[in-house]
Amino acid sequence: MKAAMQAYVDGFNRADPAAVAALFADDATIEDPVGSPLKTGKAEISKFYEFSMKTGARLKLAAPIRGSHGNSAAMAFDVELKMPEGQAVIRVIDVMTFNEAGQFTSMRAFWGPGDMEVIGGKK
Amino acid sequence: MKAAMQAYVDGFNRADPAAVAALFADDATIEDPVGSPLKTGKAEISKFYEFSMKTGARLKLAAPIRGSHGNSAAMAFDVELKMPEGQAVIRVIDVMTFNEAGQFTSMRAFWGPGDMEVIGGKK
Repeated sequence: MKAAMQAYVDGFNRADPAAVAALFADDATIEDPVGSPLKTGKAEISKFYEFSMKTGARLKLAAPIRGSHGNSAAMAFDVELKMPEGQAVIRVIDVMTFNEAGQFTSMRAFWGPGDMEVIGGKK
Repeated sequence: MKAAMQAYVDGFNRADPAAVAALFADDATIEDPVGSPLKTGKAEISKFYEFSMKTGARLKLAAPIRGSHGNSAAMAFDVELKMPEGQAVIRVIDVMTFNEAGQFTSMRAFWGPGDMEVIGGKK
């Protein structure tokens, strides 16, 4: 599970949406951020990552990836991206669930309005 | 939500199981680690924290607590504790859900066998 989570981070940082979407099961769901409507299935998931990667965002693990005694794993990371206001960071924790083939069956991203910060750059 | 998460860490580190149990709703559940049987209700929850704190464990946030756009929040931390083998660390991510009174309705702790490490001390 941790290898798949790391492949997710690496694929995102290569701006390779196909590689990231390939980590998901066909009927997987994404809730990003937690509390927003679900995206369901490969087509919506691919579109989501194509859009996300176009922002130039990069993911940086904030701590080692955690496993579990079940079919899920979690990781804390910072999303670094350029905003009109300057360099910004969004602090996120992702929780993935897995099927027996090792694919993500769901991704939930915990972050709220208070987890985004502009850390420098032009005003 | 983040204030309640921080109160959880602080209460744990004061070894105050009553303060930590008081953060939970009466019918709350704990799944620690994820994949293990649920503990349900105040009596089981109190017992769980009394036991956990007797180990002398301390919690240290690994990154800022994350909120969400819903009724849940998440945090990555290290559990530092003394084991017969020496000083140990367990790397954990906790996800809490909340009711409208701001109490935890569930706690799920993501960590697996690969997230525990003996970091020093006697062999």
